[in-house]
Amino acid sequence: MGNGGGSGGGMHSRIVGTSRFETSPSVLLRAGARFRLEDVDPDSTPGFSGTKEEGAAALLASDGELDALQERLFAASRVGARDSLLLILQAMDTAGKGGIVRHVIGAVDPQGIEHHAFKAPTAEERAHDFLWRVARRLPEDGIIGVFDRSHYEDVLVHRVRGLSAPEEIERRYAAIRRFEELVVGGGTRIIKVMLHISKDEQRARLAARLDRPDKYWKFSPGDIDERRHWDGYMEAYQIAIERTRSDDAPWYVVPANKKWYARIAVQQLLIDALHGIDPQWPAPAFDVAEQRRRLADS
Amino acid sequence: MGNGGGSGGGMHSRIVGTSRFETSPSVLLRAGARFRLEDVDPDSTPGFSGTKEEGAAALLASDGELDALQERLFAASRVGARDSLLLILQAMDTAGKGGIVRHVIGAVDPQGIEHHAFKAPTAEERAHDFLWRVARRLPEDGIIGVFDRSHYEDVLVHRVRGLSAPEEIERRYAAIRRFEELVVGGGTRIIKVMLHISKDEQRARLAARLDRPDKYWKFSPGDIDERRHWDGYMEAYQIAIERTRSDDAPWYVVPANKKWYARIAVQQLLIDALHGIDPQWPAPAFDVAEQRRRLADS
Repeated sequence: MGNGGGSGGGMHSRIVGTSRFETSPSVLLRAGARFRLEDVDPDSTPGFSGTKEEGAAALLASDGELDALQERLFAASRVGARDSLLLILQAMDTAGKGGIVRHVIGAVDPQGIEHHAFKAPTAEERAHDFLWRVARRLPEDGIIGVFDRSHYEDVLVHRVRGLSAPEEIERRYAAIRRFEELVVGGGTRIIKVMLHISKDEQRARLAARLDRPDKYWKFSPGDIDERRHWDGYMEAYQIAIERTRSDDAPWYVVPANKKWYARIAVQQLLIDALHGIDPQWPAPAFDVAEQRRRLADS
Repeated sequence: MGNGGGSGGGMHSRIVGTSRFETSPSVLLRAGARFRLEDVDPDSTPGFSGTKEEGAAALLASDGELDALQERLFAASRVGARDSLLLILQAMDTAGKGGIVRHVIGAVDPQGIEHHAFKAPTAEERAHDFLWRVARRLPEDGIIGVFDRSHYEDVLVHRVRGLSAPEEIERRYAAIRRFEELVVGGGTRIIKVMLHISKDEQRARLAARLDRPDKYWKFSPGDIDERRHWDGYMEAYQIAIERTRSDDAPWYVVPANKKWYARIAVQQLLIDALHGIDPQWPAPAFDVAEQRRRLADS
């Protein structure tokens, strides 16, 4: 991809670029003005011509880069930098959100991550505007926040299932834009990811859960009922992406039939965003030689 | 240690014991009735006769076991099991709390971890009893909670620095015992760890921070001032451990001059505790064959 990793020297030297992308997913997967979900092939691997094995190797090879960038982001926040990063993961069931968290986010020091899975809202949460619970989970300075589902459920499920009136859903698109604008203005980069699988791939993945006793707990008969609304969900995603994409808070639609591809793509989106922030190690707020002397005497 | 890992078959088959401990740290490092901190050699490696390299290999070899046990703990909680695990990390500066989180906890799926670093209390926290902020951070069912510092600061720092009256500190030991009893009664196993380094080792580690521009941010001149109170802190730890150790919420004092040893020791404490819970994969709440048919038609 030619950016980031290899650039810089000196204090940047620990962070070495290892991407195998010819063109970054930050460019290739971004939903633009003419975005059509139906044009995205869930089997494709944009920008990456390698094999599954090469993809798995690329994931491991960039683990350290992501971790080192987050550590530097955190260090910079200790001396006042207000930057943080928020990854919003949306997808149909089985699309691999959990695998992204485990295999991409899992490479980062747990001290640098704030992960939250949004479930059906509680009574307290329902007694507030839909953005209330989301605002409370925004990441601290220096941290990578991860939302497993998000406020987008309130325009996706609510549209498909008719849980809110059309006017209310219409209001929410605009509310989301303003809210995200505020968040970005406060120093949090937002990366919105839809993991995109095909309906057939979902069937295969659900079937696999029914084949393994250690996966039964992930299966619910309701998952099959939801499949009847597949087309409705795709339409709801199309509309939500159109209405809420912005330069500040872009949507990336990541082909996810190949789990290994989705993982390296999201990893690269995070790495690119962190290179965009370009956090620096803080200069010492003390005289190093003097502290060495004091320490020797202590 | 001979327990856990290798036992069981069938659905246990993913979890394979790999410990190289001759006797488990759960036995060797536990503070008993006659515990004396001064008897613990920070350079020692109780129960492990291997080299540093073998220790590092043992850590990696048991990563999967810890992760698999946590996943099973989480799965069991989905069908009503009320178990969770809380690791409380206390130590002098530079003793390696962060390294434990990064290298031991970092091997577990981030979705299964709730990590919290307790800093100097906020105005809101100070307006409550010292246990208030701690209670709010207890882990959910199925989760491994990690406290980087804890309510023990309120008897350690407060004693050494005279931040609370002696009667109040006395009250707190008893309050902590009752509080932890309640927490354990609610299904949370508690593992209290003091990472124990020597004063000389701390000097060397602080010096190393002064040698690396990417470590300056971890150093504060105040760290050197605190070293004057070293003996006071050791005494405060001795008393806190005596007063708050219990069968339900044991203290483990982990020699930590060798980082690699402290990591495998804490890893093994967690693995032993999870084997003690022995979480099971939930049985399906549906007819598997019927769901396979429904899925095929969907």
